[in-house]
Amino acid sequence: MPDRYFEEFEPGQRWVTRGRTVTEADIVNFSGLSSDFHPLHVDKAYAAQSRFGQRIAQGFLVMSMATGMVPADPEKCEALYGVDKLRFLRPVFIGDTIHLEMEVTGMRERNDGSGIVDFKFEVINQDNQAVLVNSYSLLMRKRSTQ
Amino acid sequence: MPDRYFEEFEPGQRWVTRGRTVTEADIVNFSGLSSDFHPLHVDKAYAAQSRFGQRIAQGFLVMSMATGMVPADPEKCEALYGVDKLRFLRPVFIGDTIHLEMEVTGMRERNDGSGIVDFKFEVINQDNQAVLVNSYSLLMRKRSTQ
Amino acid sequence: MPDRYFEEFEPGQRWVTRGRTVTEADIVNFSGLSSDFHPLHVDKAYAAQSRFGQRIAQGFLVMSMATGMVPADPEKCEALYGVDKLRFLRPVFIGDTIHLEMEVTGMRERNDGSGIVDFKFEVINQDNQAVLVNSYSLLMRKRSTQ
Amino acid sequence: MPDRYFEEFEPGQRWVTRGRTVTEADIVNFSGLSSDFHPLHVDKAYAAQSRFGQRIAQGFLVMSMATGMVPADPEKCEALYGVDKLRFLRPVFIGDTIHLEMEVTGMRERNDGSGIVDFKFEVINQDNQAVLVNSYSLLMRKRSTQ
Amino acid sequence: MPDRYFEEFEPGQRWVTRGRTVTEADIVNFSGLSSDFHPLHVDKAYAAQSRFGQRIAQGFLVMSMATGMVPADPEKCEALYGVDKLRFLRPVFIGDTIHLEMEVTGMRERNDGSGIVDFKFEVINQDNQAVLVNSYSLLMRKRSTQ
Amino acid sequence: MPDRYFEEFEPGQRWVTRGRTVTEADIVNFSGLSSDFHPLHVDKAYAAQSRFGQRIAQGFLVMSMATGMVPADPEKCEALYGVDKLRFLRPVFIGDTIHLEMEVTGMRERNDGSGIVDFKFEVINQDNQAVLVNSYSLLMRKRSTQ
Repeated sequence: MPDRYFEEFEPGQRWVTRGRTVTEADIVNFSGLSSDFHPLHVDKAYAAQSRFGQRIAQGFLVMSMATGMVPADPEKCEALYGVDKLRFLRPVFIGDTIHLEMEVTGMRERNDGSGIVDFKFEVINQDNQAVLVNSYSLLMRKRSTQ
Repeated sequence: MPDRYFEEFEPGQRWVTRGRTVTEADIVNFSGLSSDFHPLHVDKAYAAQSRFGQRIAQGFLVMSMATGMVPADPEKCEALYGVDKLRFLRPVFIGDTIHLEMEVTGMRERNDGSGIVDFKFEVINQDNQAVLVNSYSLLMRKRSTQ
Repeated sequence: MPDRYFEEFEPGQRWVTRGRTVTEADIVNFSGLSSDFHPLHVDKAYAAQSRFGQRIAQGFLVMSMATGMVPADPEKCEALYGVDKLRFLRPVFIGDTIHLEMEVTGMRERNDGSGIVDFKFEVINQDNQAVLVNSYSLLMRKRSTQ
Repeated sequence: MPDRYFEEFEPGQRWVTRGRTVTEADIVNFSGLSSDFHPLHVDKAYAAQSRFGQRIAQGFLVMSMATGMVPADPEKCEALYGVDKLRFLRPVFIGDTIHLEMEVTGMRERNDGSGIVDFKFEVINQDNQAVLVNSYSLLMRKRSTQ
Repeated sequence: MPDRYFEEFEPGQRWVTRGRTVTEADIVNFSGLSSDFHPLHVDKAYAAQSRFGQRIAQGFLVMSMATGMVPADPEKCEALYGVDKLRFLRPVFIGDTIHLEMEVTGMRERNDGSGIVDFKFEVINQDNQAVLVNSYSLLMRKRSTQ
Repeated sequence: MPDRYFEEFEPGQRWVTRGRTVTEADIVNFSGLSSDFHPLHVDKAYAAQSRFGQRIAQGFLVMSMATGMVPADPEKCEALYGVDKLRFLRPVFIGDTIHLEMEVTGMRERNDGSGIVDFKFEVINQDNQAVLVNSYSLLMRKRSTQ
């Protein structure tokens, strides 16, 4: 689990989380939260006519669920530094089950008792297909400065 | 409003949306939706001791609210292509009011009747400070292929 | 309580319900449910500049909360027949506490084992002011046809 | 779209909105918001024995969703004036997709820089049947007084 | 209904409430409220491999829904005194319909104008099986001290 | 963390969780989920006149939040066996921050590859006062039978 101090990370470390099913209720609740009522998400009849053939989850619903799967010990992880190259590769349908796979791709020390760790961040569905990828960067505390 | 066909975009076009206040209820609901119960978001006592001095909104709550502010005519906008260089510049506190400012920064034609439009995407608070920025890319339909 | 058979109603009968406070969370949740994100309801800064000076509850949030206060024994009440002359008299602010007062104003027999009872339907705030009124008509079963 | 100043309305103008599917999650969330837990809405076994044969949406859930579909430019629309002759014509079942059709039926000038516009307000399901109708009146600003 | 003063209770009195269907949306909403995202509740793929073969409701979702079914006149019922021997006998699946059956099992007078009434508290599903039982104790006011 | 096999537990082991603030939004959402709209929870004016002087959280909201704080590795924890002697010692007000303290009080082996571990389960507020206690029993897998 990426639940450690900066010095304890190494490129190539990988973690796989438990899964969560994306339900119709999640899409409905996310529409309300984000005010995104695009018919691909909330209109069954419209979505049936689209190239997807059915309603799909909002991209940021999937991303938000995945960020909640990142273990984050507040003693070690100071902040989400940033997200790069976020791409939505495949639709997520109602009833799909997703999980998160993370791999350390780089580490950058800073002068302030912290360091940035970059992760390949992949959300994977029940058919083992990546639905969303990005480069996810966390600001981690150093053990030496605790 | 960025609610047009690909050919109608030009670099430098700008839009400013209406605002929305980020409430305690939004943070609570987003915690439940994302399973992100980090104490900076849900523990008033912990957050009071942090460098922020109070609870802050989740970064992806702010980003999700902002994506809901993007006007998206389903006839013209095909999909969210991707997000790059997403950075969280300032905390968003309970009661802050945010809005979205978008500016066209580039356009890339594709061979399939669509094109990608890149936007500078800035979420601004009530004190006119950017709290979150990124480069936001939408896949837009061409009018000529309708 | 208006929880009786058609024959048991008489003009002038009155009921007063318990109260419920309209919270910021209710407004947030109702925005999500109704997709009504008008800035008077969700933008604190905008609402501060309006003639109300602060955010107000959506009219149909107040009406929806009030309909939930109507006692409705499924054995006796068949359906909500209709609502007439619905007027929004005063704003409902965050933290206001509302209750419902109902008075029978008329009864119309039908040929099908049921009858319509009309009520003066008033939502009252903590300062004893009516915030919303209408004429509310329920389709009630007759005892004689049970 | 009824998103204009008072002087710009004319009897006979019509608008048709996009659709939205009424989900089980919407009914569950509306029960919680309104405290309306009538078994026709929340008890599958009870509803199966009713004349509807299944659970139905609350009438004010449908009405609330529809009001959220009314475009309302805060610069032009001052308030919801009132609703008359609200009737619930057909049940809305889980999975039905509804949209709103509005037609201007009348206009009444006022002396205060505003005017009332009356609309025939019809909620239509995926089989093109009206499920709910009313006369909906908005208080609109006049352009001349801006 | 257990909606009476202390002196009006007698061992053996029984009440049966109306039912409520436990939906996927209820489980999703309860996960968010409780932060209980155990895969038996939120991961369809995981639950399919478990001894239950499908997702199950959280035990305290069922218990919470049932406590909401207890009629509680604030004039007569002072507080929930306690719960003993709470056991979860059978899983509750998405779509199950539960109701509550209560029977007075004992009464204990106190010196302060109140008394404790103990109930056998059983949550029953649509197949008439108990899914949850406990001994539920309410602190009731005495009529004589009103 | 009580996140281990049956054989690894010993009486006296203790765990303390992170905290969570009980917000007005949590109470509102729990009312909707449980259908418990008792005026002590949802009517500010009523609650101001009660012996508590303000609204209080539902007992099972507090209990539900606390059960979500129990670490539960699905590989090791088979089920919640039961809860005994659940008592609500002090009110939880809006804005209170609670956490969970658990201590192993006993272990009972079973013949089926599992065992029951009993915990003293205490919910503690920001003033270090217990607001809710019970004896909480989990069905844990044995390592030897994996």
